[in-house]
Amino acid sequence: MGRLECRFCEKDFAYDPFSPFCPDCREPLLVPSPEKPRAFHPDKALSLDRFREFLPLPEIDPALSLGEGSTPLLALDRLSAKLGLPALFAKNETMNPTLSFKDRGTAVAVQNARRMGFKRIGTVSTGNMAASTAAYGARAGLETIVLLKEGTPEENILMAGIHRPRLIVVEGDYGRLFRESLRLGRKHGILFMNSIDPFRIEGYKLTGFEIFLQTGGRIPDYLFLPLSSGGHLVGLLKSFIELKQLGFADRIPVVVGVQAEGCAPLARAFAAGAPRFSPFENPGTIAHAISNPHPPAGNLVLKMMKEQGGLITAVSDREMLEAQGLLASEGLFCQPDSATTLAALVNLTRSKVVPRDAAAVLVVTGSGLKNLKVLEGSPLPRLRVTLAGLEDALEGRTTDA
Amino acid sequence: MGRLECRFCEKDFAYDPFSPFCPDCREPLLVPSPEKPRAFHPDKALSLDRFREFLPLPEIDPALSLGEGSTPLLALDRLSAKLGLPALFAKNETMNPTLSFKDRGTAVAVQNARRMGFKRIGTVSTGNMAASTAAYGARAGLETIVLLKEGTPEENILMAGIHRPRLIVVEGDYGRLFRESLRLGRKHGILFMNSIDPFRIEGYKLTGFEIFLQTGGRIPDYLFLPLSSGGHLVGLLKSFIELKQLGFADRIPVVVGVQAEGCAPLARAFAAGAPRFSPFENPGTIAHAISNPHPPAGNLVLKMMKEQGGLITAVSDREMLEAQGLLASEGLFCQPDSATTLAALVNLTRSKVVPRDAAAVLVVTGSGLKNLKVLEGSPLPRLRVTLAGLEDALEGRTTDA
Repeated sequence: MGRLECRFCEKDFAYDPFSPFCPDCREPLLVPSPEKPRAFHPDKALSLDRFREFLPLPEIDPALSLGEGSTPLLALDRLSAKLGLPALFAKNETMNPTLSFKDRGTAVAVQNARRMGFKRIGTVSTGNMAASTAAYGARAGLETIVLLKEGTPEENILMAGIHRPRLIVVEGDYGRLFRESLRLGRKHGILFMNSIDPFRIEGYKLTGFEIFLQTGGRIPDYLFLPLSSGGHLVGLLKSFIELKQLGFADRIPVVVGVQAEGCAPLARAFAAGAPRFSPFENPGTIAHAISNPHPPAGNLVLKMMKEQGGLITAVSDREMLEAQGLLASEGLFCQPDSATTLAALVNLTRSKVVPRDAAAVLVVTGSGLKNLKVLEGSPLPRLRVTLAGLEDALEGRTTDA
Repeated sequence: MGRLECRFCEKDFAYDPFSPFCPDCREPLLVPSPEKPRAFHPDKALSLDRFREFLPLPEIDPALSLGEGSTPLLALDRLSAKLGLPALFAKNETMNPTLSFKDRGTAVAVQNARRMGFKRIGTVSTGNMAASTAAYGARAGLETIVLLKEGTPEENILMAGIHRPRLIVVEGDYGRLFRESLRLGRKHGILFMNSIDPFRIEGYKLTGFEIFLQTGGRIPDYLFLPLSSGGHLVGLLKSFIELKQLGFADRIPVVVGVQAEGCAPLARAFAAGAPRFSPFENPGTIAHAISNPHPPAGNLVLKMMKEQGGLITAVSDREMLEAQGLLASEGLFCQPDSATTLAALVNLTRSKVVPRDAAAVLVVTGSGLKNLKVLEGSPLPRLRVTLAGLEDALEGRTTDA
């Protein structure tokens, strides 16, 4: 691994595993896009092998993989008909080893960690990334440190904890913890693969490549995904930029990053036409997985979205819960955070920003099983009967719901 | 779909969607194995398409699929080294759409339901099958009825309920409910696709075919899977029997069905050399997903295992929790029910029934996220520090766990 580039300073720098930020402007650094033609290898079993020519890894060690990626792209025909959106698709990232898109990034970051000889890795997270990093760290036999915020729900701790990382609950500001983890990582030789690790972002690219192959080489008109730290969105944008640069495609989709209204620093900056965001004060939303008031790749997202013609928007908690139910009516059970994508599509077609007949892919990022609590507020109707009363219940002759 | 066969009576019968049982002996009926050479289509995206020549479906409707199957087969190298078992593999069925192997069976059963023109489907379940049937029923736009036992945990109801099936909680004996569902299904035109539906069992076959292709055509020496109603095990045995009959392989693996000691009617009958089991009185185990005191395919399992040289064993709750931790130490998070497989392998190699150097595949059937409660008893060690104390904690200089 040689050099990383800063898209703000238009310079490149030697790769420093302990700082994902530009030494000059403090914005995130990225792996430069490949310049020479590359080929896909769709016959390979591992997603990392299929796209290895697009990854900054000299080789792929299958022993570090948990079989991430190669997730289905589903045509949502019934929902299309119901909503009057004729070309609606879902890329189901919940079907990753730890049930979220994070695994794609962790898989590449762990390949990098092992190649560089690290014995210890770490992450700062409250949810999906903690479970993902703990699982891949265990798979690789690396000592894994998970730094948690005070007040992290016990279920989230269990999902990471089962893999026996070192769990450290840290009191204090989350943004400062992010920076402190990198400083201490350098001092003690721990590779902290946080949300915007450049290798993590390379892993997210593979989702875009898969969509491209799954649609038979057609680029969707719109691509919706939840927007939090910005790493996932940058990775997906990067995949389509590379497809275009390398001559595979003649355009890129309009990428739509969706935030929760209760924590929408980037949607606010985008609406104001500002090149930089301000931290979001007093965030409050049920969508914990995308509630980042100070997204580390926020300014990079604003810059790239402006260059590429993307959109950033926000939806309410009520809208995302409604959309979660709509996706479930087609058999998909996702976190409300992931359902922001459908909620935004519904809003933007209603306001005619997005044409109804546009081909739209929703990136469904995490399983609903990770956050059952949000469902507890709306109890499910059910009948209670004896065996003798079952026939009446089946025929709707019992109304005691 | 023409006829089904009874392996006890050695007769065949016209397919009756409302009864999976032989009219003569009341044992489960199976789809006859194909006799003419068949081919795989590994280039296809859908698992159902890859193996369509082995399925009793004239065509596959992709709109009914949720992208089930094509799950990873992982070499567990570090666990192999730790346990002294040099050829240990896991087939990770938790990476199905609703996080369990049930989806493979539901996918085929729903294709059948739609082809036969059913508007209503149903299932009798307390866990994985309820969520799976509700999701696929929603995907297919079918009215879906989920019959639940009184006392089913609220999380399990939420996982199925999100897809808005008709939930009916039925008081009374579970075995009687199973039979009553079929009787009422016939009367009211509802296809109840319960655990031993013959199309469901055909879906489970695909796991065996995938293992065969993933190992490059080598048949593993041993195949471990949890054993409850018997449908899954019959499906897997059937896949290897068909591979042998059709000349793809010259032997079948020793299939090991694993029960929980707290509900082990088939392990008990197997140990006694009995051709038929007796219902298990007063079952009690944390492994709810495999706690079936009166397995409907129980006698068929005993017969087929005897014919094919399989084994049935049981493990304790403590052993399966230990094995759950071992699998998590390699990055896999499964239900304790699924970890019975590793627990059994450890026991059987210790007692020299299974040679240590045998190639063994564990079928990991369901995600640990479905049953977080079992983990709540063993709190995870964690440090609590302030930002200023983080460095000491990282270096192990803080012991306040």
